Amino acid sequence: MTTKQLVEKLKQILPEKNVSTNENLRQLHGTDESYHKESLPDVVVFPENRNQVSEIMKIANKNHVPVVPFGLGTSLEGHVIPYHNGISIDFSLMNKIIEIKEDDFLVRVEPGVTRTQLNKELKKYGLFFSVDPGADATLGGMAATNASGTTAVKYGVMRDQVRNLEVVLADGTIIETGNQAAKSASGLHLNGLFTGSEGILGCFTELTLKVHGIPEHVLAARASFPSINDATEAVVSILQAGIPVARIELVDEASIHQVNIHSETDYYVGPTLFMEFHGNEAGLNEDVEFMKAIVQEHQCQEIIFEKDNHERQKLWEARHNLAYAFIHGYPGRKSMGTDVCVPISELANAIMYARENLDITGLPGGIVGHVGDGNFHVLLMIDMDNEEELKKANRFNEQLVMYALKRGGTCTGEHGVGIGKLKYQEKEHGESYKVMQQIKKVLDPNNILNKGKLIKIDEEEIIISEKSHSLDNKI
Amino acid sequence: MTTKQLVEKLKQILPEKNVSTNENLRQLHGTDESYHKESLPDVVVFPENRNQVSEIMKIANKNHVPVVPFGLGTSLEGHVIPYHNGISIDFSLMNKIIEIKEDDFLVRVEPGVTRTQLNKELKKYGLFFSVDPGADATLGGMAATNASGTTAVKYGVMRDQVRNLEVVLADGTIIETGNQAAKSASGLHLNGLFTGSEGILGCFTELTLKVHGIPEHVLAARASFPSINDATEAVVSILQAGIPVARIELVDEASIHQVNIHSETDYYVGPTLFMEFHGNEAGLNEDVEFMKAIVQEHQCQEIIFEKDNHERQKLWEARHNLAYAFIHGYPGRKSMGTDVCVPISELANAIMYARENLDITGLPGGIVGHVGDGNFHVLLMIDMDNEEELKKANRFNEQLVMYALKRGGTCTGEHGVGIGKLKYQEKEHGESYKVMQQIKKVLDPNNILNKGKLIKIDEEEIIISEKSHSLDNKI
Repeated sequence: MTTKQLVEKLKQILPEKNVSTNENLRQLHGTDESYHKESLPDVVVFPENRNQVSEIMKIANKNHVPVVPFGLGTSLEGHVIPYHNGISIDFSLMNKIIEIKEDDFLVRVEPGVTRTQLNKELKKYGLFFSVDPGADATLGGMAATNASGTTAVKYGVMRDQVRNLEVVLADGTIIETGNQAAKSASGLHLNGLFTGSEGILGCFTELTLKVHGIPEHVLAARASFPSINDATEAVVSILQAGIPVARIELVDEASIHQVNIHSETDYYVGPTLFMEFHGNEAGLNEDVEFMKAIVQEHQCQEIIFEKDNHERQKLWEARHNLAYAFIHGYPGRKSMGTDVCVPISELANAIMYARENLDITGLPGGIVGHVGDGNFHVLLMIDMDNEEELKKANRFNEQLVMYALKRGGTCTGEHGVGIGKLKYQEKEHGESYKVMQQIKKVLDPNNILNKGKLIKIDEEEIIISEKSHSLDNKI
Repeated sequence: MTTKQLVEKLKQILPEKNVSTNENLRQLHGTDESYHKESLPDVVVFPENRNQVSEIMKIANKNHVPVVPFGLGTSLEGHVIPYHNGISIDFSLMNKIIEIKEDDFLVRVEPGVTRTQLNKELKKYGLFFSVDPGADATLGGMAATNASGTTAVKYGVMRDQVRNLEVVLADGTIIETGNQAAKSASGLHLNGLFTGSEGILGCFTELTLKVHGIPEHVLAARASFPSINDATEAVVSILQAGIPVARIELVDEASIHQVNIHSETDYYVGPTLFMEFHGNEAGLNEDVEFMKAIVQEHQCQEIIFEKDNHERQKLWEARHNLAYAFIHGYPGRKSMGTDVCVPISELANAIMYARENLDITGLPGGIVGHVGDGNFHVLLMIDMDNEEELKKANRFNEQLVMYALKRGGTCTGEHGVGIGKLKYQEKEHGESYKVMQQIKKVLDPNNILNKGKLIKIDEEEIIISEKSHSLDNKI
């Protein structure tokens, strides 16, 4: 089937304006926010409802045309880049908040709704959506990658919020993976399976998500430490004391420096914990007193509280803009972020290991992380024209992954696999990788859904993903 | 393959004493705690390690012998009853607590460990395992059925505690479904898929589970109301106010009456909420004051607090023994428990509907439930020799399921499917039921693993399950 024939078929299903082969538009759908190599779709489509998505999938499946679902392209491991070309399905026209069931703490949304769009609406009801990966991603994309971020330590990851997904399968069949009840022991747990499946099992056309009441009291704090080790050990002690932190983020010295430049703040330059507590006033005060005693035991240099809503928002914006702060601070370079997650007992050593090895690379970068979950990122700024630098960065990333896997951790806490972590999947999952392959094969026998991502089915795929970022092929 | 040949093969793998065809033992493995019809395995085996389980599965798979994994037989929907005979794998000899990783709030256990066995050990570390379904089930069984119970409203269900499962697949392959990190975006979410799979995808040989710090302060309360509707509406208001209850259980008048007889308590006889709050002292007091104001708005007649550890335990034991209280109160009758779960906004009406229809049946019984999750049980006491009664009870159960499904609920909040809820699966899951069937078929092509439970693969199975409890075949 030629692209021309494909476009004609698609135009029989969709309004003409919703099918495009425009070069600029294809380019927008050929990259994400990562360092991974560009590759363009043949055509971009903008469906407006589930039935159109189903018809698109039927055409694609019949003609073995690769399909990539596309939210806003904020992925960090090449998830949405169509390395096999074909159709990019852009969900931006499916951006309606369908229903807010305030009594049930549930919302029903279309996949193109972004998290800030949802939160703006929820605020009217005294509710909020907890998952906050930094980027203003679409909820469909966040479900597809099992996004998490700063609040996961208290409220859980994306998968914990998903009550139901409406999914269009490879052959166009429309299924629902769950229901609206708070718990269920019925059937196999498809909610969990499809969340985080990175578009390889189906396209989401509607999501039912759990939301939370805006907490009565919120208090943010910044605590600085003489060393990154002191900071990390303070985190471990706080968690082990059972203090229910809502966020607890580590920002190292180099990163605080970038934050201050980019966000025009004057935060103390040293390894710092950004924290937040949610609760009723009395309980929160008791928690915070306990926390203060602990950080003091770990040589805390300075602790500043931000009760004021504006100052709190500034704090978290500064934290969230950190990746952009680095990108703006190093023009011409691209950012690679590592993403291991380790058991809490391994966290302090893992961060020390990362720090030492980052120094050895000589690359500019910093360490930040959702340390309450044992998840941290090393941001490395790479000159993509310098092959030596890319090699160094990849080797560093790989060393860190191996370190984490040996200690019961994972190669990706939240960014997902895409193509960037594809080469670690077999190593990480062992025999269960075959189970994943079996599930992929039976649900998408023609391998059209986000081909070459998350799970390798044939040899061709791994070659493409390797080419795209010239990785050492050691594993 | 004859039973004799099978036994000989099994004795080549296992110590002779661990392979039995003893009639009494087979009978013990031919029932559970429900009203479902008995059916005996041909042989019962007691493996001592994963490799033995793997070898058993290889023999079974090669010879197409049905296999049922067996914990303690406390299931309520016939899960462990071998309707196709074959091998019952009893995990009682695999009952070691392998490791308590207190710094990580994790434990590694063998599947035969019971929850009270684990909690006894955890207490030494100031930790506890949260899931509490009432029965002292094995953790392997609880993971297989995604058990929950009274504490799920705060701590989540069994699936929320599972970090890793070691699973022996149908062909004897041993896989691990997760890791020890707090979160992961790597691979497909097999933890979630295998938890609640009721033995149809594999046998669990090791579990890594999340545990929690024993809360600083615990307070239990009993609040009585003039009507079940007042009680239910109080629950909805408490949840919507965002008060973090650790348990909130409804016990209706008939059930309180049975509790008082069986547990020698003198609780006020009326619709009652049993509640528990966990937290720091100041926060907990503020929560409880808020709760008191709410229940008073809903005509609460009496509220009694149990701060004392002994009185608290007595309260929860009384609640947990409720099913036994009914069984002892109606000698000669068997207990059927409905198990729907509905969105919170539908709870008050659903319980009223259940109450009215229970009265119409004329059968003795009561309503209890984990109302914080929208999950409740109607306990019906049936004379199994009276076909009319069984028919009535089944019809009532079915009506309630249909009521729940229409309102976004599920046929089973926590008891699972087994054979009792098999006939509702297609109705509840629609097109996604086929996805479940595909997964089952690809992972267990010979359909030997707990054949005829959870997912129907061929017609033969449904016939057996229908025969077993003479259900109307309306769906």
